[in-house]
Amino acid sequence: MTENKSTKKPVILITNDDSYSAAGIRKLISLMRPLGKVVVVASEQIMSGMGHAITIKTPLRMKKIASEPDYEEYVCNGTPADCVKLGTQIVLKFKPDIVVSGINHGSNASINVIYSGTMAAVLEACIDGIPAIGFSLLEYSMDADFSHVDEYVTAITNQAIARGLPQGVCLNVNLPAISDEKPKGIKVCRQAPARWVEEFDSRMHPRGGDYHWLTGRFENDDLAEDTDQFALENNYVSVVPVQYDLTAYQAINTIKDWNL
Amino acid sequence: MTENKSTKKPVILITNDDSYSAAGIRKLISLMRPLGKVVVVASEQIMSGMGHAITIKTPLRMKKIASEPDYEEYVCNGTPADCVKLGTQIVLKFKPDIVVSGINHGSNASINVIYSGTMAAVLEACIDGIPAIGFSLLEYSMDADFSHVDEYVTAITNQAIARGLPQGVCLNVNLPAISDEKPKGIKVCRQAPARWVEEFDSRMHPRGGDYHWLTGRFENDDLAEDTDQFALENNYVSVVPVQYDLTAYQAINTIKDWNL
Repeated sequence: MTENKSTKKPVILITNDDSYSAAGIRKLISLMRPLGKVVVVASEQIMSGMGHAITIKTPLRMKKIASEPDYEEYVCNGTPADCVKLGTQIVLKFKPDIVVSGINHGSNASINVIYSGTMAAVLEACIDGIPAIGFSLLEYSMDADFSHVDEYVTAITNQAIARGLPQGVCLNVNLPAISDEKPKGIKVCRQAPARWVEEFDSRMHPRGGDYHWLTGRFENDDLAEDTDQFALENNYVSVVPVQYDLTAYQAINTIKDWNL
Repeated sequence: MTENKSTKKPVILITNDDSYSAAGIRKLISLMRPLGKVVVVASEQIMSGMGHAITIKTPLRMKKIASEPDYEEYVCNGTPADCVKLGTQIVLKFKPDIVVSGINHGSNASINVIYSGTMAAVLEACIDGIPAIGFSLLEYSMDADFSHVDEYVTAITNQAIARGLPQGVCLNVNLPAISDEKPKGIKVCRQAPARWVEEFDSRMHPRGGDYHWLTGRFENDDLAEDTDQFALENNYVSVVPVQYDLTAYQAINTIKDWNL
Protein backbone atom coordinates (compact mmCIF):
# COMPACT_ATOMS: atom_id res chain seq x y z
CA MET A 1 0.00 0.00 0.00
CA THR A 2 1.50 3.34 -0.99
CA GLU A 3 1.14 6.57 0.93
CA ASN A 4 -1.36 8.83 -0.75
CA LYS A 5 -1.65 12.19 0.90
CA SER A 6 -4.20 13.43 -1.65
CA THR A 7 -6.85 10.96 -0.49
CA LYS A 8 -8.80 11.72 2.62
CA LYS A 9 -9.02 8.07 3.63
CA PRO A 10 -7.04 7.42 6.81
CA VAL A 11 -4.61 4.48 6.84
CA ILE A 12 -5.41 2.08 9.69
CA LEU A 13 -2.97 -0.59 10.88
CA ILE A 14 -4.62 -3.47 12.76
CA THR A 15 -3.03 -6.14 14.94
CA ASN A 16 -3.93 -8.27 17.97
CA ASP A 17 -2.54 -10.99 20.23
CA ASP A 18 -5.08 -13.76 19.70
CA SER A 19 -3.81 -14.59 16.16
CA TYR A 20 -5.15 -13.47 12.78
CA SER A 21 -7.98 -16.00 12.85
CA ALA A 22 -9.61 -14.87 16.12
CA ALA A 23 -13.19 -13.60 16.05
CA GLY A 24 -12.07 -10.39 17.79
CA ILE A 25 -9.71 -9.21 15.06
CA ARG A 26 -12.20 -10.25 12.37
CA LYS A 27 -14.77 -8.02 14.07
CA LEU A 28 -12.28 -5.15 14.33
CA ILE A 29 -11.39 -5.47 10.63
CA SER A 30 -15.07 -5.36 9.68
CA LEU A 31 -15.53 -2.18 11.73
CA MET A 32 -12.38 -0.45 10.40
CA ARG A 33 -12.80 -1.12 6.66
CA PRO A 34 -15.58 1.49 6.27
CA LEU A 35 -13.31 4.05 7.98
CA GLY A 36 -10.25 3.94 5.75
CA LYS A 37 -7.50 1.95 4.08
CA VAL A 38 -6.78 -1.06 6.25
CA VAL A 39 -3.54 -3.04 6.66
CA VAL A 40 -3.61 -6.05 9.00
CA VAL A 41 -0.38 -7.56 10.37
CA ALA A 42 -1.11 -10.31 12.89
CA SER A 43 0.52 -13.39 14.26
CA GLU A 44 -0.24 -16.88 13.01
CA GLN A 45 -0.06 -18.07 16.62
CA ILE A 46 -1.88 -16.97 19.75
CA MET A 47 0.40 -14.54 21.63
CA SER A 48 -1.75 -13.97 24.74
CA GLY A 49 0.18 -13.32 27.92
CA MET A 50 3.29 -12.38 25.93
CA GLY A 51 3.41 -8.94 27.52
CA HIS A 52 5.62 -6.53 25.64
CA ALA A 53 7.75 -9.33 24.20
CA ILE A 54 9.83 -8.71 21.10
CA THR A 55 11.53 -11.28 18.89
CA ILE A 56 15.28 -10.96 18.90
CA LYS A 57 16.58 -14.52 18.74
CA THR A 58 14.80 -15.71 15.59
CA PRO A 59 14.24 -13.86 12.30
CA LEU A 60 10.76 -12.56 11.56
CA ARG A 61 8.92 -13.87 8.52
CA MET A 62 5.74 -12.44 7.08
CA LYS A 63 3.45 -13.34 4.19
CA LYS A 64 0.58 -11.55 2.47
CA ILE A 65 -2.66 -13.52 2.70
CA ALA A 66 -5.15 -10.99 1.30
CA SER A 67 -5.01 -8.06 -1.11
CA GLU A 68 -8.16 -6.16 -2.09
CA PRO A 69 -8.85 -2.49 -2.85
CA ASP A 70 -7.91 -0.51 0.28
CA TYR A 71 -7.21 -3.76 2.15
CA GLU A 72 -4.09 -5.86 2.75
CA GLU A 73 -3.55 -8.61 5.26
CA TYR A 74 -0.31 -10.21 6.43
CA VAL A 75 0.51 -12.96 8.90
CA CYS A 76 3.86 -13.33 10.62
CA ASN A 77 5.69 -15.23 13.36
CA GLY A 78 6.08 -12.17 15.58
CA THR A 79 4.56 -10.86 18.78
CA PRO A 80 2.02 -8.00 18.75
CA ALA A 81 4.83 -5.47 19.31
CA ASP A 82 6.73 -7.02 16.39
CA CYS A 83 3.59 -6.77 14.22
CA VAL A 84 3.49 -3.01 14.69
CA LYS A 85 7.18 -2.69 13.80
CA LEU A 86 6.71 -4.89 10.70
CA GLY A 87 3.54 -3.04 9.68
CA THR A 88 5.04 0.43 9.86
CA GLN A 89 8.59 -0.29 8.72
CA ILE A 90 8.31 -3.17 6.23
CA VAL A 91 4.73 -3.08 4.87
CA LEU A 92 3.73 0.59 4.91
CA LYS A 93 7.16 2.25 5.15
CA PHE A 94 5.31 5.27 6.56
CA LYS A 95 3.31 5.95 9.73
CA PRO A 96 -0.37 5.02 9.52
CA ASP A 97 -2.95 7.47 10.82
CA ILE A 98 -3.85 5.09 13.61
CA VAL A 99 -3.01 1.65 15.03
CA VAL A 100 -5.88 -0.37 16.50
CA SER A 101 -5.28 -3.62 18.36
CA GLY A 102 -7.76 -6.32 19.35
CA ILE A 103 -10.52 -6.90 19.90
CA ASN A 104 -8.91 -8.97 22.63
CA HIS A 105 -10.77 -11.98 23.97
CA GLY A 106 -10.54 -11.12 27.68
CA SER A 107 -10.12 -8.03 29.87
CA ASN A 108 -7.12 -5.75 29.70
CA ALA A 109 -8.59 -3.44 32.32
CA SER A 110 -6.82 -2.57 35.56
CA ILE A 111 -3.45 -4.22 36.09
CA ASN A 112 -4.02 -6.60 33.16
CA VAL A 113 -2.73 -3.79 30.95
CA ILE A 114 0.87 -4.61 31.88
CA TYR A 115 0.56 -8.29 30.89
CA SER A 116 -1.24 -7.51 27.67
CA GLY A 117 0.08 -8.22 24.20
CA THR A 118 -2.86 -6.25 22.80
CA MET A 119 -1.73 -3.17 24.71
CA ALA A 120 1.97 -3.84 24.00
CA ALA A 121 1.20 -3.27 20.32
CA VAL A 122 -0.59 -0.04 21.26
CA LEU A 123 2.31 1.19 23.41
CA GLU A 124 4.74 0.31 20.61
CA ALA A 125 2.79 2.53 18.20
CA CYS A 126 2.55 5.28 20.83
CA ILE A 127 6.34 5.31 21.30
CA ASP A 128 6.59 5.76 17.55
CA GLY A 129 4.27 8.79 17.72
CA ILE A 130 1.24 7.07 16.14
CA PRO A 131 -2.24 7.44 17.70
CA ALA A 132 -3.21 3.99 18.96
CA ILE A 133 -6.09 2.23 20.69
CA GLY A 134 -6.41 -1.23 22.24
CA PHE A 135 -9.87 -2.82 22.38
CA SER A 136 -10.68 -5.74 24.69
CA LEU A 137 -13.89 -7.59 25.51
CA LEU A 138 -14.56 -8.96 29.01
CA GLU A 139 -15.12 -12.45 27.67
CA TYR A 140 -12.27 -14.94 27.34
CA SER A 141 -14.06 -17.47 25.15
CA MET A 142 -12.84 -17.81 21.57
CA ASP A 143 -16.59 -17.93 20.72
CA ALA A 144 -17.18 -14.56 22.39
CA ASP A 145 -20.13 -12.54 21.07
CA PHE A 146 -19.01 -9.13 19.76
CA SER A 147 -22.39 -8.06 18.35
CA HIS A 148 -22.94 -5.23 20.86
CA VAL A 149 -19.63 -3.38 20.45
CA ASP A 150 -19.86 -1.75 17.00
CA GLU A 151 -20.99 1.75 17.91
CA TYR A 152 -18.44 2.14 20.73
CA VAL A 153 -15.44 0.91 18.74
CA THR A 154 -16.37 3.05 15.75
CA ALA A 155 -17.08 6.20 17.77
CA ILE A 156 -13.83 6.05 19.75
CA THR A 157 -11.73 5.31 16.66
CA ASN A 158 -13.35 8.11 14.65
CA GLN A 159 -12.65 10.61 17.41
CA ALA A 160 -9.03 9.50 17.74
CA ILE A 161 -8.50 9.80 13.96
CA ALA A 162 -10.17 13.21 13.85
CA ARG A 163 -8.57 14.73 16.96
CA GLY A 164 -5.35 12.75 17.39
CA LEU A 165 -4.03 11.89 20.84
CA PRO A 166 -1.71 13.86 23.15
CA GLN A 167 2.01 13.08 22.70
CA GLY A 168 2.97 9.90 24.56
CA VAL A 169 -0.65 8.90 25.26
CA CYS A 170 -2.66 5.98 23.86
CA LEU A 171 -6.02 4.46 24.82
CA ASN A 172 -6.94 1.24 26.62
CA VAL A 173 -10.60 0.51 25.85
CA ASN A 174 -12.45 -2.34 27.54
CA LEU A 175 -15.95 -3.47 26.58
CA PRO A 176 -18.38 -5.29 28.88
CA ALA A 177 -19.38 -8.80 27.82
CA ILE A 178 -22.73 -9.02 26.10
CA SER A 179 -25.73 -9.14 28.42
CA ASP A 180 -29.47 -8.59 28.28
CA GLU A 181 -28.86 -4.90 28.85
CA LYS A 182 -27.14 -2.65 26.32
CA PRO A 183 -23.97 -0.93 27.70
CA LYS A 184 -24.89 2.30 29.46
CA GLY A 185 -22.30 4.36 27.58
CA ILE A 186 -18.58 5.21 27.64
CA LYS A 187 -16.63 6.33 30.72
CA VAL A 188 -13.13 7.87 30.68
CA CYS A 189 -11.36 6.34 33.69
CA ARG A 190 -8.13 5.71 35.55
CA GLN A 191 -6.56 2.24 35.83
CA ALA A 192 -7.90 0.42 38.93
CA PRO A 193 -5.18 -0.86 41.29
CA ALA A 194 -6.72 -4.33 41.37
CA ARG A 195 -4.48 -7.41 41.44
CA TRP A 196 -4.49 -11.18 41.16
CA VAL A 197 -4.39 -13.15 44.43
CA GLU A 198 -3.97 -16.86 45.29
CA GLU A 199 -2.65 -17.48 41.87
CA PHE A 200 -1.64 -21.14 41.73
CA ASP A 201 -3.51 -24.40 41.43
CA SER A 202 -0.79 -26.91 42.44
CA ARG A 203 -1.16 -30.59 41.51
CA MET A 204 0.82 -33.79 41.79
CA HIS A 205 1.85 -35.49 38.57
CA PRO A 206 0.77 -39.19 38.41
CA ARG A 207 4.43 -40.17 37.93
CA GLY A 208 5.60 -37.87 40.74
CA GLY A 209 6.62 -34.23 40.99
CA ASP A 210 4.25 -31.34 41.42
CA TYR A 211 3.28 -28.71 38.88
CA HIS A 212 1.46 -25.40 39.13
CA TRP A 213 -1.24 -23.83 36.97
CA LEU A 214 -1.42 -20.07 37.03
CA THR A 215 -4.96 -19.18 38.10
CA GLY A 216 -6.45 -17.18 40.97
CA ARG A 217 -8.99 -14.44 41.48
CA PHE A 218 -8.94 -10.75 40.78
CA GLU A 219 -9.34 -8.38 43.73
CA ASN A 220 -10.07 -4.66 43.66
CA ASP A 221 -9.79 -2.91 47.02
CA ASP A 222 -10.33 0.51 45.44
CA LEU A 223 -14.07 1.08 45.34
CA ALA A 224 -13.93 4.61 43.90
CA GLU A 225 -16.20 5.28 40.95
CA ASP A 226 -13.57 6.67 38.57
CA THR A 227 -11.76 3.39 37.82
CA ASP A 228 -12.06 1.17 34.76
CA GLN A 229 -13.10 -1.78 36.95
CA PHE A 230 -16.00 0.23 38.38
CA ALA A 231 -17.13 1.33 34.92
CA LEU A 232 -17.06 -2.22 33.56
CA GLU A 233 -18.81 -3.71 36.60
CA ASN A 234 -21.58 -1.18 35.96
CA ASN A 235 -21.89 -2.07 32.26
CA TYR A 236 -20.04 0.94 30.84
CA VAL A 237 -17.33 0.84 28.20
CA SER A 238 -14.10 2.02 29.90
CA VAL A 239 -11.49 4.26 28.23
CA VAL A 240 -8.19 4.77 30.07
CA PRO A 241 -5.56 7.12 28.62
CA VAL A 242 -2.28 5.25 29.03
CA GLN A 243 1.37 6.38 28.87
CA TYR A 244 4.66 4.55 28.40
CA ASP A 245 6.59 6.89 30.70
CA LEU A 246 6.64 4.74 33.84
CA THR A 247 8.51 7.32 35.95
CA ALA A 248 6.91 7.75 39.37
CA TYR A 249 7.59 11.51 39.41
CA GLN A 250 6.01 11.92 42.84
CA ALA A 251 8.68 9.59 44.29
CA ILE A 252 11.79 11.24 42.82
CA ASN A 253 12.40 13.53 45.79
CA THR A 254 11.79 10.70 48.27
CA ILE A 255 14.53 8.63 46.64
CA LYS A 256 16.83 11.67 46.33
CA ASP A 257 16.52 12.06 50.11
CA TRP A 258 18.19 8.66 50.52
CA ASN A 259 21.49 10.46 49.74
CA LEU A 260 22.81 7.52 47.79
CA MET B 1 12.54 -21.36 54.13
CA THR B 2 10.24 -20.50 57.02
CA GLU B 3 9.26 -17.03 58.11
CA ASN B 4 11.11 -16.02 61.23
CA LYS B 5 10.02 -12.66 62.54
CA SER B 6 12.37 -12.91 65.55
CA THR B 7 15.48 -12.73 63.41
CA LYS B 8 16.58 -9.39 62.08
CA LYS B 9 17.83 -10.86 58.81
CA PRO B 10 15.75 -9.63 55.89
CA VAL B 11 14.43 -12.20 53.41
CA ILE B 12 15.57 -11.39 49.87
CA LEU B 13 13.98 -13.01 46.79
CA ILE B 14 16.19 -12.91 43.69
CA THR B 15 15.28 -13.53 40.07
CA ASN B 16 16.38 -12.39 36.59
CA ASP B 17 15.66 -12.91 32.90
CA ASP B 18 19.02 -14.20 31.66
CA SER B 19 18.60 -17.64 33.34
CA TYR B 20 19.95 -18.91 36.63
CA SER B 21 23.43 -19.53 35.20
CA ALA B 22 24.10 -15.97 34.00
CA ALA B 23 27.03 -14.08 35.46
CA GLY B 24 24.71 -11.20 36.39
CA ILE B 25 22.50 -13.18 38.77
CA ARG B 26 25.54 -14.95 40.23
CA LYS B 27 26.99 -11.51 41.02
CA LEU B 28 23.69 -10.35 42.53
CA ILE B 29 23.49 -13.49 44.70
CA SER B 30 27.03 -12.89 45.98
CA LEU B 31 26.12 -9.31 46.91
CA MET B 32 22.80 -10.22 48.59
CA ARG B 33 23.93 -13.15 50.73
CA PRO B 34 25.75 -10.92 53.26
CA LEU B 35 22.56 -8.83 53.59
CA GLY B 36 20.05 -11.50 54.61
CA LYS B 37 18.35 -14.81 53.93
CA VAL B 38 18.35 -15.37 50.18
CA VAL B 39 15.91 -17.34 48.02
CA VAL B 40 16.62 -17.53 44.29
CA VAL B 41 13.90 -18.53 41.79
CA ALA B 42 15.12 -18.20 38.22
CA SER B 43 14.41 -19.66 34.84
CA GLU B 44 16.45 -22.48 33.33
CA GLN B 45 16.17 -20.71 29.97
CA ILE B 46 17.07 -17.20 28.88
CA MET B 47 13.89 -15.07 28.98
CA SER B 48 15.26 -11.81 27.58
CA GLY B 49 12.79 -9.73 25.57
CA MET B 50 9.87 -11.57 27.16
CA GLY B 51 8.39 -8.36 28.52
CA HIS B 52 5.81 -8.93 31.19
CA ALA B 53 4.93 -12.38 29.87
CA ILE B 54 3.23 -14.89 32.13
CA THR B 55 2.79 -18.62 31.57
CA ILE B 56 -0.83 -19.62 31.25
CA LYS B 57 -0.85 -22.38 28.63
CA THR B 58 1.63 -24.79 30.21
CA PRO B 59 2.03 -25.80 33.85
CA LEU B 60 4.95 -24.40 35.80
CA ARG B 61 7.53 -26.78 37.23
CA MET B 62 10.23 -25.91 39.71
CA LYS B 63 13.09 -27.78 41.37
CA LYS B 64 15.42 -26.96 44.23
CA ILE B 65 19.07 -26.95 43.14
CA ALA B 66 20.75 -25.58 46.27
CA SER B 67 20.02 -25.52 49.99
CA GLU B 68 22.48 -24.04 52.47
CA PRO B 69 22.04 -22.08 55.71
CA ASP B 70 20.08 -18.92 54.85
CA TYR B 71 20.21 -19.82 51.14
CA GLU B 72 17.91 -21.71 48.78
CA GLU B 73 17.93 -21.80 45.01
CA TYR B 74 15.24 -23.02 42.60
CA VAL B 75 15.04 -23.22 38.83
CA CYS B 76 11.78 -23.31 36.88
CA ASN B 77 10.31 -23.12 33.39
CA GLY B 78 8.62 -19.77 34.01
CA THR B 79 9.18 -16.19 32.97
CA PRO B 80 10.62 -13.60 35.38
CA ALA B 81 7.08 -12.54 36.40
CA ASP B 82 6.22 -16.21 37.01
CA CYS B 83 9.38 -16.58 39.14
CA VAL B 84 8.19 -13.88 41.52
CA LYS B 85 4.77 -15.52 41.82
CA LEU B 86 6.36 -18.93 42.45
CA GLY B 87 8.87 -17.49 44.92
CA THR B 88 6.31 -15.69 47.06
CA GLN B 89 3.38 -18.12 46.81
CA ILE B 90 4.95 -21.59 46.51
CA VAL B 91 8.45 -21.33 48.02
CA LEU B 92 8.19 -18.71 50.76
CA LYS B 93 4.41 -18.62 51.30
CA PHE B 94 4.95 -15.12 52.73
CA LYS B 95 6.15 -11.80 51.34
CA PRO B 96 9.92 -11.34 51.36
CA ASP B 97 11.36 -8.04 52.59
CA ILE B 98 12.58 -7.24 49.09
CA VAL B 99 12.70 -8.65 45.56
CA VAL B 100 15.83 -7.91 43.53
CA SER B 101 16.06 -8.79 39.84
CA GLY B 102 19.13 -8.98 37.59
CA ILE B 103 21.82 -8.03 37.20
CA ASN B 104 20.60 -7.89 33.60
CA HIS B 105 23.14 -8.20 30.81
CA GLY B 106 22.11 -5.08 28.86
CA SER B 107 20.41 -1.75 29.48
CA ASN B 108 16.88 -1.41 30.80
CA ALA B 109 17.12 2.36 30.86
CA SER B 110 14.72 4.64 29.01
CA ILE B 111 12.03 2.90 26.98
CA ASN B 112 13.76 -0.48 27.37
CA VAL B 113 11.94 -0.74 30.72
CA ILE B 114 8.73 -1.76 28.97
CA TYR B 115 10.36 -4.66 27.07
CA SER B 116 12.24 -5.88 30.09
CA GLY B 117 11.73 -9.23 31.78
CA THR B 118 14.03 -8.05 34.56
CA MET B 119 11.70 -5.14 35.28
CA ALA B 120 8.56 -7.25 34.77
CA ALA B 121 9.63 -9.27 37.81
CA VAL B 122 10.10 -6.02 39.72
CA LEU B 123 6.68 -4.67 38.72
CA GLU B 124 5.10 -8.00 39.66
CA ALA B 125 6.54 -7.70 43.17
CA CYS B 126 5.50 -4.04 43.36
CA ILE B 127 1.88 -4.92 42.50
CA ASP B 128 2.05 -7.39 45.36
CA GLY B 129 3.20 -4.64 47.75
CA ILE B 130 6.80 -5.86 48.04
CA PRO B 131 9.72 -3.37 47.73
CA ALA B 132 11.57 -4.31 44.55
CA ILE B 133 14.59 -3.23 42.53
CA GLY B 134 15.79 -4.19 39.05
CA PHE B 135 19.52 -3.94 38.31
CA SER B 136 20.90 -3.84 34.77
CA LEU B 137 24.40 -3.36 33.35
CA LEU B 138 24.97 -1.49 30.08
CA GLU B 139 26.85 -4.44 28.59
CA TYR B 140 25.04 -7.15 26.64
CA SER B 141 27.84 -9.72 26.58
CA MET B 142 27.32 -12.88 28.63
CA ASP B 143 30.99 -12.34 29.66
CA ALA B 144 30.19 -8.86 31.01
CA ASP B 145 32.48 -7.58 33.77
CA PHE B 146 30.52 -6.77 36.94
CA SER B 147 33.51 -6.02 39.16
CA HIS B 148 32.76 -2.27 39.53
CA VAL B 149 29.11 -2.50 40.67
CA ASP B 150 29.29 -3.87 44.22
CA GLU B 151 29.07 -0.67 46.25
CA TYR B 152 26.15 0.75 44.23
CA VAL B 153 24.04 -2.42 44.27
CA THR B 154 24.64 -2.92 47.99
CA ALA B 155 23.98 0.72 48.95
CA ILE B 156 20.71 0.98 47.01
CA THR B 157 19.43 -2.37 48.29
CA ASN B 158 20.32 -1.54 51.90
CA GLN B 159 18.46 1.76 51.69
CA ALA B 160 15.39 0.12 50.16
CA ILE B 161 15.32 -2.55 52.87
CA ALA B 162 15.79 0.01 55.64
CA ARG B 163 13.36 2.67 54.37
CA GLY B 164 10.94 0.71 52.19
CA LEU B 165 9.51 2.21 49.02
CA PRO B 166 6.37 4.33 48.49
CA GLN B 167 3.21 2.32 47.71
CA GLY B 168 3.08 1.37 44.03
CA VAL B 169 6.69 2.41 43.36
CA CYS B 170 9.72 0.25 42.52
CA LEU B 171 13.22 1.08 41.27
CA ASN B 172 14.87 0.67 37.88
CA VAL B 173 18.65 0.85 38.42
CA ASN B 174 21.06 0.89 35.49
CA LEU B 175 24.83 0.62 35.86
CA PRO B 176 27.37 1.93 33.32
CA ALA B 177 29.60 -0.68 31.69
CA ILE B 178 33.05 -0.96 33.21
CA SER B 179 35.59 1.60 31.97
CA ASP B 180 38.92 3.05 33.00
CA GLU B 181 37.06 5.56 35.14
CA LYS B 182 35.06 4.60 38.24
CA PRO B 183 31.34 5.60 38.05
CA LYS B 184 30.91 9.18 39.29
CA GLY B 185 28.09 8.27 41.67
CA ILE B 186 24.33 7.65 41.69
CA LYS B 187 21.70 9.92 40.09
CA VAL B 188 17.93 9.70 40.70
CA CYS B 189 16.34 10.31 37.28
CA ARG B 190 13.26 10.20 35.10
CA GLN B 191 12.89 7.75 32.21
CA ALA B 192 14.28 9.25 28.98
CA PRO B 193 11.82 9.26 26.06
CA ALA B 194 14.39 7.66 23.74
CA ARG B 195 13.29 5.08 21.19
CA TRP B 196 14.59 2.55 18.68
CA VAL B 197 14.63 3.61 15.03
CA GLU B 198 15.29 1.79 11.71
CA GLU B 199 14.78 -1.47 13.42
CA PHE B 200 15.02 -4.17 10.75
CA ASP B 201 17.86 -5.80 8.87
CA SER B 202 15.97 -7.51 6.01
CA ARG B 203 17.63 -10.35 4.07
CA MET B 204 16.79 -12.78 1.31
CA HIS B 205 16.84 -16.47 2.16
CA PRO B 206 19.04 -18.53 -0.22
CA ARG B 207 16.01 -20.66 -1.08
CA GLY B 208 13.77 -17.60 -1.56
CA GLY B 209 11.63 -15.47 0.72
CA ASP B 210 12.85 -12.63 2.84
CA TYR B 211 13.26 -12.50 6.59
CA HIS B 212 13.86 -9.67 9.04
CA TRP B 213 16.19 -9.35 12.02
CA LEU B 214 15.14 -6.91 14.71
CA THR B 215 18.03 -4.47 15.12
CA GLY B 216 18.36 -0.68 14.80
CA ARG B 217 19.78 2.20 16.79
CA PHE B 218 18.66 3.99 19.90
CA GLU B 219 17.83 7.69 19.62
CA ASN B 220 17.32 10.18 22.42
CA ASP B 221 16.01 13.58 21.32
CA ASP B 222 15.61 14.76 24.92
CA LEU B 223 18.94 16.26 25.93
CA ALA B 224 17.87 17.37 29.41
CA GLU B 225 20.20 16.41 32.25
CA ASP B 226 17.62 14.72 34.49
CA THR B 227 17.09 11.55 32.42
CA ASP B 228 18.53 8.09 32.97
CA GLN B 229 20.15 8.16 29.53
CA PHE B 230 22.01 11.37 30.39
CA ALA B 231 23.19 9.96 33.71
CA LEU B 232 24.48 6.76 32.10
CA GLU B 233 26.18 8.58 29.20
CA ASN B 234 28.03 10.58 31.85
CA ASN B 235 29.14 7.50 33.79
CA TYR B 236 26.63 7.75 36.66
CA VAL B 237 24.50 4.92 38.01
CA SER B 238 20.85 5.81 37.21
CA VAL B 239 17.93 5.17 39.58
CA VAL B 240 14.40 5.72 38.19
CA PRO B 241 11.39 5.29 40.50
CA VAL B 242 8.86 3.35 38.40
CA GLN B 243 5.12 2.76 38.79
CA TYR B 244 2.68 0.23 37.34
CA ASP B 245 -0.19 2.70 37.15
CA LEU B 246 0.01 3.58 33.45
CA THR B 247 -2.87 6.08 33.58
CA ALA B 248 -2.01 9.31 31.77
CA TYR B 249 -3.87 11.44 34.32
CA GLN B 250 -3.02 14.66 32.49
CA ALA B 251 -4.97 13.38 29.45
CA ILE B 252 -8.20 12.34 31.20
CA ASN B 253 -9.94 15.69 30.71
CA THR B 254 -8.81 15.89 27.08
CA ILE B 255 -10.46 12.56 26.32
CA LYS B 256 -13.54 13.47 28.38
CA ASP B 257 -13.93 16.50 26.10
CA TRP B 258 -14.45 14.13 23.18
CA ASN B 259 -18.00 13.64 24.52
CA LEU B 260 -18.02 9.98 23.58
